[in-house]
Amino acid sequence: MAQNTIGTIFKVTTFGESHGAGLGCIVDGVPAGIKIDTDKIQSALDRRKPGQSFGGKNNASVTARKEDDKAEILSGIFEGKSEGTPIGIVIRNTSQHSKDYGNLVNTFRPGHADYSFYAKYGFRDYRGGGRSSGRETAARVAAGDIARQVLEALSDGKVKITAYTEKAAGVSIEKVDFSEIEQNSLRAADSAAAEKMNAKIEEIRKNGDSCGGVIACKITGIPAGLGEPVFGKLDAELAKGIVGIGAVKGIEFGAGFDAADSTGSTNNDNMRASSDKKSVEFESNNAGGIIGGISNGNEIFFRVAVKPVPSIFQSQKTISVDEAGKYTDCDLVIEGRHDVCLCPRIVPVIEAMTAITLADLWLQNRASKI
Amino acid sequence: MAQNTIGTIFKVTTFGESHGAGLGCIVDGVPAGIKIDTDKIQSALDRRKPGQSFGGKNNASVTARKEDDKAEILSGIFEGKSEGTPIGIVIRNTSQHSKDYGNLVNTFRPGHADYSFYAKYGFRDYRGGGRSSGRETAARVAAGDIARQVLEALSDGKVKITAYTEKAAGVSIEKVDFSEIEQNSLRAADSAAAEKMNAKIEEIRKNGDSCGGVIACKITGIPAGLGEPVFGKLDAELAKGIVGIGAVKGIEFGAGFDAADSTGSTNNDNMRASSDKKSVEFESNNAGGIIGGISNGNEIFFRVAVKPVPSIFQSQKTISVDEAGKYTDCDLVIEGRHDVCLCPRIVPVIEAMTAITLADLWLQNRASKI
Amino acid sequence: MAQNTIGTIFKVTTFGESHGAGLGCIVDGVPAGIKIDTDKIQSALDRRKPGQSFGGKNNASVTARKEDDKAEILSGIFEGKSEGTPIGIVIRNTSQHSKDYGNLVNTFRPGHADYSFYAKYGFRDYRGGGRSSGRETAARVAAGDIARQVLEALSDGKVKITAYTEKAAGVSIEKVDFSEIEQNSLRAADSAAAEKMNAKIEEIRKNGDSCGGVIACKITGIPAGLGEPVFGKLDAELAKGIVGIGAVKGIEFGAGFDAADSTGSTNNDNMRASSDKKSVEFESNNAGGIIGGISNGNEIFFRVAVKPVPSIFQSQKTISVDEAGKYTDCDLVIEGRHDVCLCPRIVPVIEAMTAITLADLWLQNRASKI
Amino acid sequence: MAQNTIGTIFKVTTFGESHGAGLGCIVDGVPAGIKIDTDKIQSALDRRKPGQSFGGKNNASVTARKEDDKAEILSGIFEGKSEGTPIGIVIRNTSQHSKDYGNLVNTFRPGHADYSFYAKYGFRDYRGGGRSSGRETAARVAAGDIARQVLEALSDGKVKITAYTEKAAGVSIEKVDFSEIEQNSLRAADSAAAEKMNAKIEEIRKNGDSCGGVIACKITGIPAGLGEPVFGKLDAELAKGIVGIGAVKGIEFGAGFDAADSTGSTNNDNMRASSDKKSVEFESNNAGGIIGGISNGNEIFFRVAVKPVPSIFQSQKTISVDEAGKYTDCDLVIEGRHDVCLCPRIVPVIEAMTAITLADLWLQNRASKI
Repeated sequence: MAQNTIGTIFKVTTFGESHGAGLGCIVDGVPAGIKIDTDKIQSALDRRKPGQSFGGKNNASVTARKEDDKAEILSGIFEGKSEGTPIGIVIRNTSQHSKDYGNLVNTFRPGHADYSFYAKYGFRDYRGGGRSSGRETAARVAAGDIARQVLEALSDGKVKITAYTEKAAGVSIEKVDFSEIEQNSLRAADSAAAEKMNAKIEEIRKNGDSCGGVIACKITGIPAGLGEPVFGKLDAELAKGIVGIGAVKGIEFGAGFDAADSTGSTNNDNMRASSDKKSVEFESNNAGGIIGGISNGNEIFFRVAVKPVPSIFQSQKTISVDEAGKYTDCDLVIEGRHDVCLCPRIVPVIEAMTAITLADLWLQNRASKI
Repeated sequence: MAQNTIGTIFKVTTFGESHGAGLGCIVDGVPAGIKIDTDKIQSALDRRKPGQSFGGKNNASVTARKEDDKAEILSGIFEGKSEGTPIGIVIRNTSQHSKDYGNLVNTFRPGHADYSFYAKYGFRDYRGGGRSSGRETAARVAAGDIARQVLEALSDGKVKITAYTEKAAGVSIEKVDFSEIEQNSLRAADSAAAEKMNAKIEEIRKNGDSCGGVIACKITGIPAGLGEPVFGKLDAELAKGIVGIGAVKGIEFGAGFDAADSTGSTNNDNMRASSDKKSVEFESNNAGGIIGGISNGNEIFFRVAVKPVPSIFQSQKTISVDEAGKYTDCDLVIEGRHDVCLCPRIVPVIEAMTAITLADLWLQNRASKI
Repeated sequence: MAQNTIGTIFKVTTFGESHGAGLGCIVDGVPAGIKIDTDKIQSALDRRKPGQSFGGKNNASVTARKEDDKAEILSGIFEGKSEGTPIGIVIRNTSQHSKDYGNLVNTFRPGHADYSFYAKYGFRDYRGGGRSSGRETAARVAAGDIARQVLEALSDGKVKITAYTEKAAGVSIEKVDFSEIEQNSLRAADSAAAEKMNAKIEEIRKNGDSCGGVIACKITGIPAGLGEPVFGKLDAELAKGIVGIGAVKGIEFGAGFDAADSTGSTNNDNMRASSDKKSVEFESNNAGGIIGGISNGNEIFFRVAVKPVPSIFQSQKTISVDEAGKYTDCDLVIEGRHDVCLCPRIVPVIEAMTAITLADLWLQNRASKI
Repeated sequence: MAQNTIGTIFKVTTFGESHGAGLGCIVDGVPAGIKIDTDKIQSALDRRKPGQSFGGKNNASVTARKEDDKAEILSGIFEGKSEGTPIGIVIRNTSQHSKDYGNLVNTFRPGHADYSFYAKYGFRDYRGGGRSSGRETAARVAAGDIARQVLEALSDGKVKITAYTEKAAGVSIEKVDFSEIEQNSLRAADSAAAEKMNAKIEEIRKNGDSCGGVIACKITGIPAGLGEPVFGKLDAELAKGIVGIGAVKGIEFGAGFDAADSTGSTNNDNMRASSDKKSVEFESNNAGGIIGGISNGNEIFFRVAVKPVPSIFQSQKTISVDEAGKYTDCDLVIEGRHDVCLCPRIVPVIEAMTAITLADLWLQNRASKI
């Protein structure tokens, strides 16, 4: 595997399977002397946890498993400030009781990583998806909040990263109001639209099915100059960070796929000098704040495609494998309780990976000029 | 900058500005004993070069600059085989005459990286875009062909990477016929559609404007198991490699953004055992051949959004900067000759970055099991 | 800091200060399917812990602090085998009571990293040395035992790494008998010599002083071919791993500094074919088993210089710093109890760093040939 | 191989075999806006080239091959300043005529990397040692001079790196006078001692033999704070960089192996406040300017053991290999002309690797504090 570390200067390494003893991360490269509020790390984790997710209005279709994630900070912070040493964080798996995994031991769930893990490692941790479980993202969220606090310190509080559900179950938002994001169970930037999404999701849930959606992310306060051509460009690194989140199937920056149908005269973002001549303003933002892989000072904007939850309650055609490695066709009905739509739970993970990527590129950029 | 190397085991490092003395790359990590055909590296470069690009039927609108790219291999190959040592390649810039760059010295072209480079480095190579020029991709294409030959050797000739234009100037292909890709100037997988694209492009060109498009890429012959969770996933690494190409504004895998509107029962790819029970077949490919960040043995498929060429012949609103760093509004009319649509030239670059990414993950995967 | 990870494929990341809540590591890149005996990891930790160290015959001068290091494995091992996922290990700091650090808060101990940490980070964890404490090596030893088990699996049990004290307090061993290493408190390969060392150390201890020594390390069972020129050579990577251990001031391979006084005809290791012509034998080993940065199949051998323990009980001239950053001369008498000679405690750390380096290069070497 | 890049921010990647078309490097991570004098890069190469090396008084025993190394800078420098983009450098192999390599094709020279390369790659570039040739260091020297110029800019001219021969053929210098280093053919810091070394070397040369030596290196002007614990410590990174030079068999910092025989009260470097209370002075430098892996502001000092040249003119016992991989004993007499002592040629390489390591850690340190 060997790729559980991300970043060059601000580096995050994670560990942990869904049903092992625990998971966690080491956050390395935090500059010394930054105030780190550990309560905020815990709040970030609380925001990610399953109890918040849902389907219908009453959040009936949440994952039953209660993940009472408690971040324990073991190192790297002294007298409330970062020491410049690695911050070790552990989150125990408290509610993962050993149980009979029945046919899941040898059967591969469609749409899950069961088969690809088996093919890669010749052996598989069948307990709740093991390392491929969404639970792994708890460590990212904890690390992401440290990155957020680092960015806050580096930018004097200017950087703000806000992700929100733009579409779910085929229903789109009609406005973007940040104040509504935490007011509805879908983390949509439009609570009225969220109502409609929820109605559609409830329908899908009753059908034993699941759905996907689109999440948007806006970042303000990033100065021009972040991103390291030609292989560490800002958009390339964000793409790597975001596409590496489970269930993400696509990403587009600024006008994205719509730019493909546009023309240069429409798509180029014209520039104007600010009134004091000291800064630059853009008349549009089709670039999503990134040109040539470097931030241009405009708002950074990207959209993310989230696939439907693969665990559904309809019978599915799949295969099992025996000890000799022979495959046999079978039908699988997944049990337990599962999210119907991942969007609200992925919102904090996208913010976390964005913060981690930006903190790293901010620190890298310190070396760009004499 | 410091990020001109990509890869962990199969590593490519590039250098070179548009109008400097030359560009090139070091390809490190090629296993020893692989036959490397240097003529094929040259053919790959020839395929990328500007003379091939165009707008109208007669290719009237190509970039005037004739890049007669000649790859000179300086090391790493002995008696026709890779030595296991780094392969150094140099491509000279032969036709870049010094000239008067006029107002481009202090003026930032909209849609180009001029301003973001200036903001990052405090100083800018105004000659043809410097390092942000598309010319930089020549080194990637040379390195990419080595990666392709490595994959061919590792897979006994099974791996095939094929990119093609799927849409340009708003016109989409209606079939996918690989044999037609090199038969039309747009590298569309449908020559009849390419005719329509060309007609539309000619219209845009006459208007002094430019257009974008969508490129698709299919890879066959990749076994299940490539990709290194959780931060070196196959899709994440491909996203990084592809989004890092200039003009790319988005990427989606398999069903991509359409998956966001789908349901689990439709989107999951059901599995069946092969008739001899020894391998796995999929009834669909909404995942694009990647699950949990690991190849599942299915065809790998992704789509890429390409923005319109930023250099257009209409007057644009922009700014210039003086030595004191003060910005002033101005209008800019770009001269010279420029591509109207980048799609056909980006096709080989996408194939190159795909090959580089896959060769690296293939070699990384050698360490995944005892 | 950002450099708490070592390795390219087999990667170890550590965290933890001397007096924080705990320390630990993430061991990434362990191939899947290797039997990992967690009891052995604990045994390795037990072997490192302070209770074993000493000064006089009765081990009177050991560090008083009892580190009851308990390795808790949180992930990466399933049904007794490595999963191919990162192994997370936590070791709590149980006996580090908060206490009054008195003058150590603002005074820099000579020979310790107090001042250089302060200069680097502008701020310092004065509790027991913080991250610069030798306690940090507990995480390396845990990770090192996993590396040892990986090497055992990769080599079918052939690889053996053995370090031992060759000289302490100026007294050298007169024979090398591996069976005696764990029979004396100095981990000398000659128990009779260890008696003499101990007598000398007791004398030094009574004088409130400390001493250094030399540790040798032999590795058998490494096949020819490990090491990655030109910047990841076997000896270069070992040097990095070993010199990065606190208190180490030098390393030499094979004949080392003596080679500087030798001639080519003496120093070259002549080669002979084995009787079955299938392998190579060397008539000497002045190279220490490494030529051109690659193992040659001969025994690997290196020696390490260990400086005297910097904490002594004599009054020392040093400085303190005030909040305004002004320095003032002062005299310091260090209290508490401290090792007199670090050699026996560094022996397991050298073995650990050697195992980590070799496991990484072994896995890297899997990519060297087609 | 895949390890031809060194550094995290200031990164050097090299390529090239002894008798291929050429060699060179890409120097990435140079901050933008630094004046780079390309003539000085050429001077550094001129200083390394073989014509300078020697044996007797009349330099009769130099390597016959005239390496007229001409560094061609292809990118990264614009209007005399670094652009922030990678600097590509090519040095052609002009005098490497194809010739009959005779028995060297299948015979392994003792003390050379011939056998270990063969074992690793299954195949070997027998032309002059291929990648294992000392010729590879030309690229390091070119990159090293850029590093030196970067350090000069970063430190306002304060950093000075000076290596010199301290011992050769068993003869030691008796004083350290930097002004004499370039006044004698051995680059000894004592020309009178150099006379004696040369007399001894001439004797050895007549005997068809070779000798080794010790090189010392002093660096002034490095502020306290460079080095990244716990795996990127200053001494550990220097050790990696220096031990990775061919023929180097050991390194020691400050008192080094002598510290092993010392006591804490002698070995600790006491500190005193400067008269203005603003800086720190040390009463000794047994640490060699590095404590806890971080520079302490004192002069950095280390010593390097250089083995005797392995190419000698006496008959040696070795083996050859046939196509089936069977080994056969044989005697080998090496022809051509070879250096008798490598010390003077390694001096510039040690300075280069030191500069590369320090430039990287200097830039890394920019991220250590808020």
